[in-house]
Amino acid sequence: MKRPENTNVHLSLPAVCIVWQTAMIILFGVFMRYDHESDAHWVEHRKHSNLTDIENDFYFRYPSFQDVHVMIFVGFGFLMTFLKRYSFGGVGFNFLIAAFGLQWALLMQGWFHWLDADGKIRIGIENLINADFCVAGCLIAYGALLGKVSPVQLMVLTLFGITLFAVEEFIIISVIHARDAGGSMVIHTFGGYYGLSVSWMLYRPNLHQSSRLQGSVYHSDVFAMIGTLFLWMFWPSFNSAICDHGDGQHRAAINTYLCLASTVLTTVAISSLFQKHGKLDMVHIQNSTLAGGVAAGTAAEFMLMPYGCLIVGFCCGIISTLGYIFLTPFMEKHLKIQDTCGIHNLHAMPGVVGGIVGAITAASASIEVYGHEGLVNTFDFMDKFKDMVPTTQGGHQAAGLCVALCFGIGGGIIVGAILRLPIWGDPADDNCFDDETYWEVRDKS
Amino acid sequence: MKRPENTNVHLSLPAVCIVWQTAMIILFGVFMRYDHESDAHWVEHRKHSNLTDIENDFYFRYPSFQDVHVMIFVGFGFLMTFLKRYSFGGVGFNFLIAAFGLQWALLMQGWFHWLDADGKIRIGIENLINADFCVAGCLIAYGALLGKVSPVQLMVLTLFGITLFAVEEFIIISVIHARDAGGSMVIHTFGGYYGLSVSWMLYRPNLHQSSRLQGSVYHSDVFAMIGTLFLWMFWPSFNSAICDHGDGQHRAAINTYLCLASTVLTTVAISSLFQKHGKLDMVHIQNSTLAGGVAAGTAAEFMLMPYGCLIVGFCCGIISTLGYIFLTPFMEKHLKIQDTCGIHNLHAMPGVVGGIVGAITAASASIEVYGHEGLVNTFDFMDKFKDMVPTTQGGHQAAGLCVALCFGIGGGIIVGAILRLPIWGDPADDNCFDDETYWEVRDKS
Amino acid sequence: MKRPENTNVHLSLPAVCIVWQTAMIILFGVFMRYDHESDAHWVEHRKHSNLTDIENDFYFRYPSFQDVHVMIFVGFGFLMTFLKRYSFGGVGFNFLIAAFGLQWALLMQGWFHWLDADGKIRIGIENLINADFCVAGCLIAYGALLGKVSPVQLMVLTLFGITLFAVEEFIIISVIHARDAGGSMVIHTFGGYYGLSVSWMLYRPNLHQSSRLQGSVYHSDVFAMIGTLFLWMFWPSFNSAICDHGDGQHRAAINTYLCLASTVLTTVAISSLFQKHGKLDMVHIQNSTLAGGVAAGTAAEFMLMPYGCLIVGFCCGIISTLGYIFLTPFMEKHLKIQDTCGIHNLHAMPGVVGGIVGAITAASASIEVYGHEGLVNTFDFMDKFKDMVPTTQGGHQAAGLCVALCFGIGGGIIVGAILRLPIWGDPADDNCFDDETYWEVRDKS
Repeated sequence: MKRPENTNVHLSLPAVCIVWQTAMIILFGVFMRYDHESDAHWVEHRKHSNLTDIENDFYFRYPSFQDVHVMIFVGFGFLMTFLKRYSFGGVGFNFLIAAFGLQWALLMQGWFHWLDADGKIRIGIENLINADFCVAGCLIAYGALLGKVSPVQLMVLTLFGITLFAVEEFIIISVIHARDAGGSMVIHTFGGYYGLSVSWMLYRPNLHQSSRLQGSVYHSDVFAMIGTLFLWMFWPSFNSAICDHGDGQHRAAINTYLCLASTVLTTVAISSLFQKHGKLDMVHIQNSTLAGGVAAGTAAEFMLMPYGCLIVGFCCGIISTLGYIFLTPFMEKHLKIQDTCGIHNLHAMPGVVGGIVGAITAASASIEVYGHEGLVNTFDFMDKFKDMVPTTQGGHQAAGLCVALCFGIGGGIIVGAILRLPIWGDPADDNCFDDETYWEVRDKS
Repeated sequence: MKRPENTNVHLSLPAVCIVWQTAMIILFGVFMRYDHESDAHWVEHRKHSNLTDIENDFYFRYPSFQDVHVMIFVGFGFLMTFLKRYSFGGVGFNFLIAAFGLQWALLMQGWFHWLDADGKIRIGIENLINADFCVAGCLIAYGALLGKVSPVQLMVLTLFGITLFAVEEFIIISVIHARDAGGSMVIHTFGGYYGLSVSWMLYRPNLHQSSRLQGSVYHSDVFAMIGTLFLWMFWPSFNSAICDHGDGQHRAAINTYLCLASTVLTTVAISSLFQKHGKLDMVHIQNSTLAGGVAAGTAAEFMLMPYGCLIVGFCCGIISTLGYIFLTPFMEKHLKIQDTCGIHNLHAMPGVVGGIVGAITAASASIEVYGHEGLVNTFDFMDKFKDMVPTTQGGHQAAGLCVALCFGIGGGIIVGAILRLPIWGDPADDNCFDDETYWEVRDKS
Repeated sequence: MKRPENTNVHLSLPAVCIVWQTAMIILFGVFMRYDHESDAHWVEHRKHSNLTDIENDFYFRYPSFQDVHVMIFVGFGFLMTFLKRYSFGGVGFNFLIAAFGLQWALLMQGWFHWLDADGKIRIGIENLINADFCVAGCLIAYGALLGKVSPVQLMVLTLFGITLFAVEEFIIISVIHARDAGGSMVIHTFGGYYGLSVSWMLYRPNLHQSSRLQGSVYHSDVFAMIGTLFLWMFWPSFNSAICDHGDGQHRAAINTYLCLASTVLTTVAISSLFQKHGKLDMVHIQNSTLAGGVAAGTAAEFMLMPYGCLIVGFCCGIISTLGYIFLTPFMEKHLKIQDTCGIHNLHAMPGVVGGIVGAITAASASIEVYGHEGLVNTFDFMDKFKDMVPTTQGGHQAAGLCVALCFGIGGGIIVGAILRLPIWGDPADDNCFDDETYWEVRDKS
């Protein structure tokens, strides 16, 4: 089988991996230290603060961290194995860029949020969760580009994506003081539009030459369900992982659980309604069932109320499935946006919905519902924001959503321009969605 | 490929999904509120009760909840992917009915057990676990019907199944005061006989017309092992999830772990002994290895003692594997019960064994073994049951088992009669075990 | 298809399973009891010691235990499904020997470490984790023998392996007082060389007769990635599971996470560099990416520092991948060691690296970095070791590594000699790597 010379990443891929990993070692050596809960001095700190071992943040967050970790590597990874001959690339490149991205994310987020007086970043379990979150944004973007880019391009996409993410997150969370526990805006809106913009910049008019490979087979659809289910099941952990200890984490988990349950029903309904003979489409079941988790992100720790969660999930299942049926073909045909996994329907749109839900819920928060201390705790009305009121908070939430959109679209266009340079070893149009380009495949198809 | 008109669920499936989801929203709006540990007022309650954040029930139960969640969606789902062309239906319909069922279960169980003075149901993490448990009963029943029913029938089966479950559970746990931490009686005995009775009502004399599809292929057996292993590994979490804080959860996990380990050995022994050339049968390894977890359910938090657990597991592996070899064919031929997944061997029989083990263990409990406070705690000899003694408790356990059997068989016959109505879009006899009936399948077999 | 008579395990496999399981029941009956945290008397103990329920060890370790459990059954099991027609044997026999091994491990480790004054072993959650660890050693050894041995041989391998492990662990941990939280020496070095020595003793000069089956197909490689990812994700739990409460567990998780991330990058680099056209090899991605977790084992709870972790991972990815490319073929050709899964590259070598890293890190520990209490806590400088200093500890670590090597190689040669007896039903040379030897396979290849 002929393959154009340019997909050879024989030197560029090893070079990028080694250089960047070496840079990470140096930067970690200069900046990265254990925080007081993971340092050997904890035993002294513990006695001094009269704490018990179980009050180490590790025990509050480690189970959630591991669930998030599964979502990043198995969830996103296996969700992208659905193509008939791109399962290696789906799960393998996801693995590669996540492992690289989380190191860079620890640094970037550390510089913005965790820098100590002595210029060192102090890491603990919460940083690992945040790094996984940060990586998620780039993996979402990969979903739009699946099968059409080289691993070197993905590394570049990730390097810039993490950088943009950290800046955007700093502005939204710390400057604007928007709340976004599960990252509807920060992760999903940003990551979704970032990926779509890059895909628009890398538009391939002759992608139909690879159409024989752009679909699933029976077994690859079952593999993808592994990804779907681990994402679906652990989303309550995702949205609650960095919430406040106590009721914050508890409520976020319940809200997300309910939102997701509702989404499944409407996804099935719409999928069946718009297909011939009422048959279900695996694409919808694999993807749209997750939209509720995305949309529950921002408001996860708010008093969204159980019925509110069901309503959000109800709408998202409908919107997302209709997106797959009508919007994705439209975008490919008329907007020149090729979106392999349909991330617009799974992440971008539900992320925007989540941002809006968050703004409304925040604006309508009241002391009757939250209690005075609850309101202060939930919205972090402390220090220089101690005079804020819920209505203002609603406005800030909306501003945060706009920032996420701008960073996603703007950043994607710039990074897309970089990725158009003819030096990255990307596949030819008749060579997309094919693992043989970058992997040793023993049984040729 | 011709397909009879009646499998068209083009209108019925979307209608059922939308109507029921809408009903859920309304009922949740009227009844469902956060409990005091997931409400924003927790911070005040915490200070008032002099608690630390880590004593929120969330931290006692959330890791177990997530394990149970994995069992419900990945465990049950993938266990049912073993058929060569019904993997979509196995994992997909499992997903659908679980997502619907857990909402209805939150309501039904809430009305019976968690209703507040003001007529509201207060939910927290324990309710989510209980809802997942409740759903498990219906998924077990689905195992008997796999490949032979339409998704609409499954929704109806689930609606009635959850309702019956909640009533049965209320009688067994609250009225009779039987203990059933892991649900050997409440979940497995009920769910098993419910499914078998429905299957008996829906007997298909000409099912052999689909026999070409009623088996596994190599890869589908490996997929099913994903389900088996996640069920096997997380069963200690299942049986300990709603036990008492502290030693109750600790002991239940240990007991279940030991029970399951023992079952594997005897399953392999019997499988090898009864096959030609001593070869192992994947059906047994996938299913019978789990029987010990079912049987450890009722007595999980009792002082079953480590050797007692091994004995229970030893027996269950033998009974369950022999069931697959002799009983399932017998039941299909002579009792007109077609049991696709062999739930009689995996859930129904081991569930009854678990109920009996629970009754014996309870009856023989003593202050020497448990200590006075331990006895009161473990068996909840408080309030109006404060004068109960272990021997009486043993009798109550046996009564609970009878109730589970009656509800399972009686409920199954009634619901089976409803499902025989010719309006549900179920497949023809030569069309069973085939995903093409209800799913878009891109590569035709 | 002809099959030599000797692979018939019709009587031997059931006999071994039943006899050993019966022996377990008797021994558990004599020796095994609940410890004070899982016994019903805990409620009294708790009040007496003024503890809260959440301080039961169960809540410190259960989430980690479940992650370790997943690694043992799904991680190791699915990693061994990569062969085109030995997936049943890979995941199925892994299941069998792990379930048997953990019972024997509870006894062996109990006799050495947990024996009470009254001659009883008291078990709690930490024992379950240790039993899983102990089993891991034998599963590693299975990796070298995959496809070439009978299930009866595996049972014998496990019985002796667990026994050797418990003695070796007692010497290294209790006598020599080496620290080995994640078992680089105790588990991986021992298990690796144990398996390689057995494989050397069972050398098959005509194994090439089965070469048609000694490789993967597309889907089996995707199955194997399930194993890889669950091992990779949960390795932080593995290395932190039995560390000290508080900062010990916290730091071990962070160290392992960083080590693993770094390994992925260098594995990809080396894999691409040494293949034609820079294509990646699935064998490397599936295995070498895990080497960092192995090497982080011994030093996991030490103050390895974040950059130190990245360096360890960096080196291990390179060493392990080069091992697959150069060393495995060399060992097969010149040393008569056939290593199906390449455990030398994944476990044995990185285990030795981990032991050395542990010795160096221990020797260079200082009060400045650890604090006085931290140093005592981390290295357990108490009781009869209260006068030890870090440099001495470094020497003891090195001694521990030597013990692990000796037990692995020596034990493997002895057990290998036993397994050469012609009574175990192992497959003929042209019959290896074939599930049809020991399993009912419905679709013949």
